[in-house]
Amino acid sequence: MGNLIVAQSGGPTAAINSTLAGVLRECYSNNIKVYGAKFGVEGILKENFIDLSGLSESDLDILSKTPASALGSCRYKLCEPKEDEGDFKRVIEVFRKHDIDKFIYIGGNDSMDTVLSLSEYFNEKGIDDMFVNGAPKTIDNDLCNIDHCPGFGSSAKFIATVCSELAREVKVYDKENVFVVEVMGRNAGWLAAAAGLVNDREIPFIIYPSEVELSAEKFLKDLNSAMQKSKNVIVVVSEGVIVNNLSNRENSEKDAFGHVNVAGSGKILESIIKEKLGYKTRYIELNLLQRCAAHVLSKTDIVESIELGRKAVQIGMDKKSGKMATLTRISNAPYKVEYSYVGVKNVANLEKRVPKNFINADENGVTEEMLLYLRPLIQGEMSCVYKDGLPEYFIF
Amino acid sequence: MGNLIVAQSGGPTAAINSTLAGVLRECYSNNIKVYGAKFGVEGILKENFIDLSGLSESDLDILSKTPASALGSCRYKLCEPKEDEGDFKRVIEVFRKHDIDKFIYIGGNDSMDTVLSLSEYFNEKGIDDMFVNGAPKTIDNDLCNIDHCPGFGSSAKFIATVCSELAREVKVYDKENVFVVEVMGRNAGWLAAAAGLVNDREIPFIIYPSEVELSAEKFLKDLNSAMQKSKNVIVVVSEGVIVNNLSNRENSEKDAFGHVNVAGSGKILESIIKEKLGYKTRYIELNLLQRCAAHVLSKTDIVESIELGRKAVQIGMDKKSGKMATLTRISNAPYKVEYSYVGVKNVANLEKRVPKNFINADENGVTEEMLLYLRPLIQGEMSCVYKDGLPEYFIF
Repeated sequence: MGNLIVAQSGGPTAAINSTLAGVLRECYSNNIKVYGAKFGVEGILKENFIDLSGLSESDLDILSKTPASALGSCRYKLCEPKEDEGDFKRVIEVFRKHDIDKFIYIGGNDSMDTVLSLSEYFNEKGIDDMFVNGAPKTIDNDLCNIDHCPGFGSSAKFIATVCSELAREVKVYDKENVFVVEVMGRNAGWLAAAAGLVNDREIPFIIYPSEVELSAEKFLKDLNSAMQKSKNVIVVVSEGVIVNNLSNRENSEKDAFGHVNVAGSGKILESIIKEKLGYKTRYIELNLLQRCAAHVLSKTDIVESIELGRKAVQIGMDKKSGKMATLTRISNAPYKVEYSYVGVKNVANLEKRVPKNFINADENGVTEEMLLYLRPLIQGEMSCVYKDGLPEYFIF
Repeated sequence: MGNLIVAQSGGPTAAINSTLAGVLRECYSNNIKVYGAKFGVEGILKENFIDLSGLSESDLDILSKTPASALGSCRYKLCEPKEDEGDFKRVIEVFRKHDIDKFIYIGGNDSMDTVLSLSEYFNEKGIDDMFVNGAPKTIDNDLCNIDHCPGFGSSAKFIATVCSELAREVKVYDKENVFVVEVMGRNAGWLAAAAGLVNDREIPFIIYPSEVELSAEKFLKDLNSAMQKSKNVIVVVSEGVIVNNLSNRENSEKDAFGHVNVAGSGKILESIIKEKLGYKTRYIELNLLQRCAAHVLSKTDIVESIELGRKAVQIGMDKKSGKMATLTRISNAPYKVEYSYVGVKNVANLEKRVPKNFINADENGVTEEMLLYLRPLIQGEMSCVYKDGLPEYFIF
């Protein structure tokens, strides 16, 4: 059997290295020599790769709890083979040179497009001894044909944890106070929905996933209604929410040199509160922390991420190509999933948005169905490996 | 012996409830009835308090890991007794009515001013059976006559943890990338300095505590020099750093209604990078998370915070007034502290800034002396009490 090369692509997550660790474990178990391409598929084109043989169990343990893409990432899209076959020929050349017959790309829907075009190219050219497959990852949880995405559970746990803490913080002073928390998710509001998991008996949450239609008027109505219950409220909004009648561009901040930055949805809601209600308010952008906070990992997420890495290796060993390792939820109580695979053309460039029945009728929160879906995904904790008071992370 | 009342004041921390738990434990051990005033000293004036008797060990454990001020807080300053004795007479009236002879105010240097003026007033009026003392807290670490402040160690651990993770994240793509992380500290740069604890062998850190003189020119020089070592750099800056020749006001953002918000120091540095160097850069404000992230607690901090709460009770039992519980570092290896007290007039309204020998000669980082000071304060982890995947926090 030939060698295997693995690469990581797209935005990093706190669990993407767990999948890498799963790939390595499965390769070690099957005596497959494994290379890692640095900075995604570009590392293959440039022959910039490292030998990943022989990591110890303790290295693999630290690697699986290390945030961000340990091999580096890229946003490189292969050129269209009809226009230019250069990239494709180069991949084949590199693979032949290093006796590589299996390639695993860990990534989201853009990365699955790379898997798709490579595997289709090989197929068209009659190359039947090179197997290109994908392992899923994305905090956005927007991949199709998978119950939920590796990386999402840990981000969801981080967001819900921080929101639990902010719920304690927002009510410290004896006066009206509203926090507006902006989370990632341009088109799909899964991450905002995760705040619905917070169960604080005092503080109402208003949640706007990206799928919601919002206007200043609707927001003020929702907020006034929540403030009937408590003078302290937390608003969680996807970055992708558009506030109608208030163009994000017109109302944007300028940087120190007068350049306009398009304001985030949360910043706009903060402005509306200040202007129309005069309450104390604070805009909190969770920023990159929500995808790299490896000090809050969901054990469920990490275990599944490792298994999906293993599965991706098995698919290639079974001489299949153009597939993505996936998981299906078998039951919620007890929570159980089954690992299998799906054709990448059913994943590449597609997007799974939050369905209507997961958002409440008032479009300002989530339904019990959403919570039933989310709850298992944040269960269990992984303790970091601490050294001298700080988490230890793996560096190749 | 009379009853005791405890209140919390100023900005909350992740450890302020540990000190409250320490107060309660010491009261329970000595059969002292204990009340909690809601929303600081205002809760005394308004007789808005709750009976804190009989919390279980498990409640106290959760309370000591709960962020923000569980009793609520205020920024109320007592009126000057020479101008208006109303507040003071009211406090005495309330204390007499409820047989309270000990008051503990958990807070920072403003709160110690309240302890000072109350204790001086009692002294002047010959009231020798009411004992008002303070227990310290502040993430800013700027109180005088204490080695370091309760709450600081946990914030420092959170900041250093997040910066460790961002160091992995900043180098994901194969190109220049700079993160600018803004942390709290208007006048004292201790929290920014905590990022110096990160030990990442690949990523250089530039650290600007509030005490540093900064200009766009100096910043560009420092950044260019760091980028000789790595194309990925993390800049950590105190919110209080003034960037000379670039007025924070002129270069500020406007909100959705055209109001000018004074830009943070980090936002200004981000603009300078974009404008002058054109590198990819990202501004990350740690915001309230740095003071309420109870999912990352320093065990050292929590243990000390509890002990200082106990000590504050003992001071009152010893019929002393106008004191603040404090701690002195006896040795670094092994790390050891001693608990005692200090007159609040040596704390109230004073500020401990970072000394010159803790900042490097280039004014862009910290010295080994600073690290020796900081390292023990982030040691040890406290695990949250998790319920259904999220930390459980105490609500009165």
